This record gives sequence, C-alpha cells and structure tokens, in this order.
Amino acid sequence: MEISAQLAGIKPSYIREILAATQAPGMLSLAGGLPASELLPVSQLMQAMESLAQSPEVFQYGETTGYAPLLDFLSAKHGLPSDNAAMVCTGSQQAIDLIARAYLNPGDTVAMEAPSYLGALQVFGLAQANIHSIEQTNEGPDLNQLETAFATGSIKLFYGVPDFHNPTGVCWSLAVRKAVADLCNRYQVAFVEDVPYRELRFTGTALPLVSSFSPNNAFVMRSFSKVSSPGLRLGMVSAPKEWLAALVKIKQASDLHTGLPMQAVLLSLLRSEGFPKHLEMVRSNYKQRYQVLYQALEPLFGEYCECDTVEGGMFVWLKLLKSQAMDVTRTLLEQNVAVVPGDVFYSSVDITRPALRLNFTHSSLAQLEVAVARLSDVLRAQV
Amino acid sequence: MEISAQLAGIKPSYIREILAATQAPGMLSLAGGLPASELLPVSQLMQAMESLAQSPEVFQYGETTGYAPLLDFLSAKHGLPSDNAAMVCTGSQQAIDLIARAYLNPGDTVAMEAPSYLGALQVFGLAQANIHSIEQTNEGPDLNQLETAFATGSIKLFYGVPDFHNPTGVCWSLAVRKAVADLCNRYQVAFVEDVPYRELRFTGTALPLVSSFSPNNAFVMRSFSKVSSPGLRLGMVSAPKEWLAALVKIKQASDLHTGLPMQAVLLSLLRSEGFPKHLEMVRSNYKQRYQVLYQALEPLFGEYCECDTVEGGMFVWLKLLKSQAMDVTRTLLEQNVAVVPGDVFYSSVDITRPALRLNFTHSSLAQLEVAVARLSDVLRAQV
Repeated sequence: MEISAQLAGIKPSYIREILAATQAPGMLSLAGGLPASELLPVSQLMQAMESLAQSPEVFQYGETTGYAPLLDFLSAKHGLPSDNAAMVCTGSQQAIDLIARAYLNPGDTVAMEAPSYLGALQVFGLAQANIHSIEQTNEGPDLNQLETAFATGSIKLFYGVPDFHNPTGVCWSLAVRKAVADLCNRYQVAFVEDVPYRELRFTGTALPLVSSFSPNNAFVMRSFSKVSSPGLRLGMVSAPKEWLAALVKIKQASDLHTGLPMQAVLLSLLRSEGFPKHLEMVRSNYKQRYQVLYQALEPLFGEYCECDTVEGGMFVWLKLLKSQAMDVTRTLLEQNVAVVPGDVFYSSVDITRPALRLNFTHSSLAQLEVAVARLSDVLRAQV
Repeated sequence: MEISAQLAGIKPSYIREILAATQAPGMLSLAGGLPASELLPVSQLMQAMESLAQSPEVFQYGETTGYAPLLDFLSAKHGLPSDNAAMVCTGSQQAIDLIARAYLNPGDTVAMEAPSYLGALQVFGLAQANIHSIEQTNEGPDLNQLETAFATGSIKLFYGVPDFHNPTGVCWSLAVRKAVADLCNRYQVAFVEDVPYRELRFTGTALPLVSSFSPNNAFVMRSFSKVSSPGLRLGMVSAPKEWLAALVKIKQASDLHTGLPMQAVLLSLLRSEGFPKHLEMVRSNYKQRYQVLYQALEPLFGEYCECDTVEGGMFVWLKLLKSQAMDVTRTLLEQNVAVVPGDVFYSSVDITRPALRLNFTHSSLAQLEVAVARLSDVLRAQV
C-alpha cells in the first residue's frame, strides 16, 4: 500500500542504525540522549504510586489537557501568565508535533538553528515544511541571519532550544534571548521554545526564558524526561490560550489524552520533600561526568578538534578539524564506541560542519575515559 | 496565528458541549462512552504496580513499538500471524491517527459505515480525506453499496467496528465478515478493523475477526480502555509487518513511544489469575444494565421509537419515529439527562437518520430508569 506524501518525505535516518548498534554487548554509547539509568528516582516513583488508590479518577477517561492538579501545580511553579494555558503531552516531543499539525501547511517555512534537534527536524519534515537554517554562534542564533530571514515575511515559526542546546550544548546569552523575543514580536513570528534541559544547569546562573520577554508570542515546551523519568513520557506545553486551544483539538483527535496515573505520580514526585535534593544530586553527578569527558578530550584540542565548554545539559559538540564525522563514527563503531555524527542534525547536507555529538550522562566516568581514548586513537590515525 | 488547513477542516463538535454539560451536578449521563467507574480494577492495578520495582527499565526510554513483554504476551494471546507485527499506542484512537498519517493524502477516500465512530470521523477529517458512507444494516455494512464503492477504484481504506458498533451496537454477522474480507481482498482496499468492544460480549457466541479471513490486508486495533482502565490510555495495533513499520516511523516522530510503566502494569493485570473473573463480572454487570435500559424503553417502541437488541458493547441506538434528535437532546438536557443525537455520527448532514445513542455502562440501574422516564415524557410531549 502506498505511503502518504508526508511519510515519504522523511529521510531514512542513520541515527536509527547507530542507536540500534548501541544495544550490542560491550558497546560504549555516547550516542543517545539518555539520562543515567542508575540515577532515575525509581524508589521515589514507587512510593508516589502508593497514593494512587486515593485518586481512582485517574483510571477513568479524563480531560484532553491532562490531570488538573498537575497542571495547576506546574502553572503556579512556572508562573504561567494568566492569559496562557497549559496541556500535558506524551513527552515534549508530542507538543512539537501538535504545534506543527495545528499551524503548518505543506510548504510553510520554519526557522531553526543549524544544527538543530533531530526530533524537531523529523516533525517539521512530516509537516512538509521548509526549513530555513540560522547558523548558531556560541551565544545562540546569529541575529543578523535571523532578522534577514524574518524580513522575507515567509517564516511562520522559529523553533529554538535556548538552554543547553541539543546537539551543541550552547546556552543562549541574555542579550540574544531579549533580541530573539524582540525580533519575533516585531516580525510576528511565533517562537517555539523547547527547554528539556533547562533544569540540568550545573554551572553558572539560570537565565530567563526567551518567552518571558514575549509571553503572548511563544509556545514553551517542558520535559520531565531529564529530571524524573523518560519512560513516563510526560511533558508540558504552554501558550497563549487561543493558541493552546488549537493544540487541544488536534490532541483530542489523535489520542484523547495522555495516560493519567503517571501524571498523578509525577505530581507527587515533584511535590515531595526530597525532590530538590534529587535534582541537585543529578546535576552534580552530571557535572562530574562532563568534567571527566572534557578533560579527557582536552589533549586533542587545537590539532584534531575543538569543543566549547557547556554549563549544563547532556551533550558536548566536538568540532573536527581534520576528519569527516561519518568516517570517524563508522571507525569508532567498529571499536565498540557509539557517537552521533553531526551531519544528522542539519536539514541539508550542504550546510553541515564536521562534528560529533557526545553524550556524557549515560556512561560511567571510566566508560567516558575509555571511549575518549579510542576516539583519540581514531582521530590521530585518520590524519 | 492562522491555523492549518487540516485543523480548519474539523467541524466544531456539538458533542463537546454535551459532554461538558454532563459534568453538571445532578446530570444523568447516557452520553459518554465511559465504563462504570466503580467496576474499574483499581485494587488489581495497584497490586500490579508493586512489581514495577523489579522492572526499572520501564523508567528509561524504550522502543517505539512498546514494552516487549506486553507485545509478546498479546501477540501470543491473539494468535498474531507470523508475518504481522504489533505496536502499543496511546489508546486505539492513536492507532487510527497513525494509519491516517502514514497512508492518507488529502483528497484520498475512506469508506466508513454510516453512522460511524466520531473519533474516527475526526481523524479522517484531520487527514483531509473524503468519506464514502456505506449504510449499515443490522448485519453490518450494506454489501452492495460496499462493492459499488470499491468498484470505483477510489477507496483506499475501509474503516469498520464489527463488534458492538459505536454508535449502533450492531455486531456484524459471520457472512458479512467473510464477504467484507473477500471484497477488501478483491478490490485491494485495506480493512481497518477497530474492536474496542470485542471483549464486552454478554450474550451469544464470539465471531471471528474480519481480518482473520484476510490477515495480510488489515490493520487491527484493540483497546484496553473497556476491559481494564481508560485512564491508562493503552491500545494495540497489529498489521502486516511492512504496514506496521510505516506507523512506527510516524509514532517515533510524534511521541517516541507510549509511557512504559503502565504497559508493564497492564501486562501484570492481564496475566493475573483474577482477570478472567473480573471480565466476567463486568460483562454480567453490563448485561443487567442493558436489560434494564431496554425493558424501560420497550413501552415506547412502535409509536415513538425503535431499538434493535444488542449482544454486547456499551450502547443502544434509539431510532426516533416522530421527533428530531437535536430537539429531543436539547429538551432532555434541560431535564438533566444527557444523550448524544445521532446526527454527530454521520459525515454529512444529508444522510443522517433521527436517532439517539444511549450508553448503558456508566449509569446505575436506578439512573437508567429515571433517565428513560424523562425521555419517555419528552417523546410523548413532542408529538
């Protein structure tokens, strides 16, 4: 049976092969974007489940927007503007998809940083949107390119990951945040602010959301995968009420609502006395993994690769000075080390830069060191 | 911001108003499609949750297709053909959406019974598909109309609910099942078999799935909302492997996968010794509610309305002989009784028949009797 045009437009993804390969025994994987399994708050979640018997309504059909007590808690916690509304989604990934389905027609144009989050590229690909790529500096998107793009009048949405960007780890500066909000307002481009890594800052001071400077012109997507558990598949999207209403209609047709029991469990976890301590532990643990990775990489800098420091998140972006990313990736895989070649994070092969995305949150300190030792050998041998 | 063409094509739904009204205090609701809250296996689910600590992998990211032990169990239980594959979805509703996104282009035509399930009408509306309506007899779809439609060569999918149809309660006869499978095969139209009520048979003998006569030409969607808990939002879709692979790609982009902990909990529940007894209890309870509703309606038959008997499911379809469905619905709402006017289950107002869908699984026996007493007054007064 012939597949739809939207599905036919999705490119086969090399990253699926890599991620499949990471399941092989003995593989050291710096490829995925997985939190450390041993740090997931399993016992806290188990404890939170015990209280579900007091909320039997979570086993019946519910509202499309999600479990109301969770929405109330999150709206208060994040100081949601009164003319905004929120909905729980099956991960923040689903929110990107709902936005695309509610607001994009085939041929519409979305601006994105280059490189950008692969899952968002896939969603906008399904929506048959054109991608207008904006180069990323180490302070965020290139503002001149952004304004030039907006001035064409053809950009409908600007999708960005301002906090510890996937794949680069870049955190947008305060000045860039204000400027992006201002440009989006001026040119009436809706900003799609995806902040799954926002709570994973282990150095420096938190910066305001871009949307805090333009709350009536943005969608904000939060994820609970990085701070609680990805297996729950829970995220939240907030937006001006009218914009959110459009997403609710799509979600109602597509799955009625996200499963409720784990929404109640998440609420108990987030409210629990021990949660801030858990989060602090995760941050400090990830900081250590990052430092070990970075220090292991340092001897390669200047000659073989470059790498900016990061203040949080799950990834570093290793720019290759002498090698091609796909070559290095393939050779490393033969040596049981999985990484992601930077190429997959670009909407077009014409604009790729040779780089690797390295995840530091799912491997032990020892595994990180072994992986870098093998990477080092590969880079030195390839020259 | 302008919404997309797919969203703009969705009609505002009167059923949302009705369902919102059902929340009012004192409302007797025969409107929704909810299982009885007091029969949900909450304590069994709570018990099943205790074992999650032994499966910590359900808290990490997983495969898009779902929790493998659940898929294995269900594939064995349902005797899935070896060249078919299955995926867990966020309710069977999501499976309809995935099929539409993977296989339909705007302007493609889907055949459906008239009346038909509203959630499927919404999905195919989002897909901007044309609906070719096939009249329903009390044995299933009209086969002559179906063959005439198929012979045009323009039908891509035929969506049907053969077991205790929503909204009519009709169960397709064995002859119709075989004939539909045969026609779909002959004209190469994929059959989309939606069986959320299949396990809710309380009289008569189970009939084979339509797809059992053409396993290489059908999608099958099963729901766990009616037999375990709708709040979990868990369903399953199975299809020939290649067809399923297309759905997996769409699901990966749209939400990565459905939440895992409740998939493991569902598996424990389905495997538990007490589950067959639970299901038997639900069936016998629903049978009693159905009988009370039907007997209360009987004095109205012939003069004011007609109603075929049903052998399972959650609904009866009350054909009105002298009144308009919207009028009756509005007047009943003023008297705190909510029902769904049949009009909403048709793709076009031109083909509607005056009828009401009455749900018998979410009201007590006493509530059903009071609701019918008020309905009786309204029907008699309207003549």
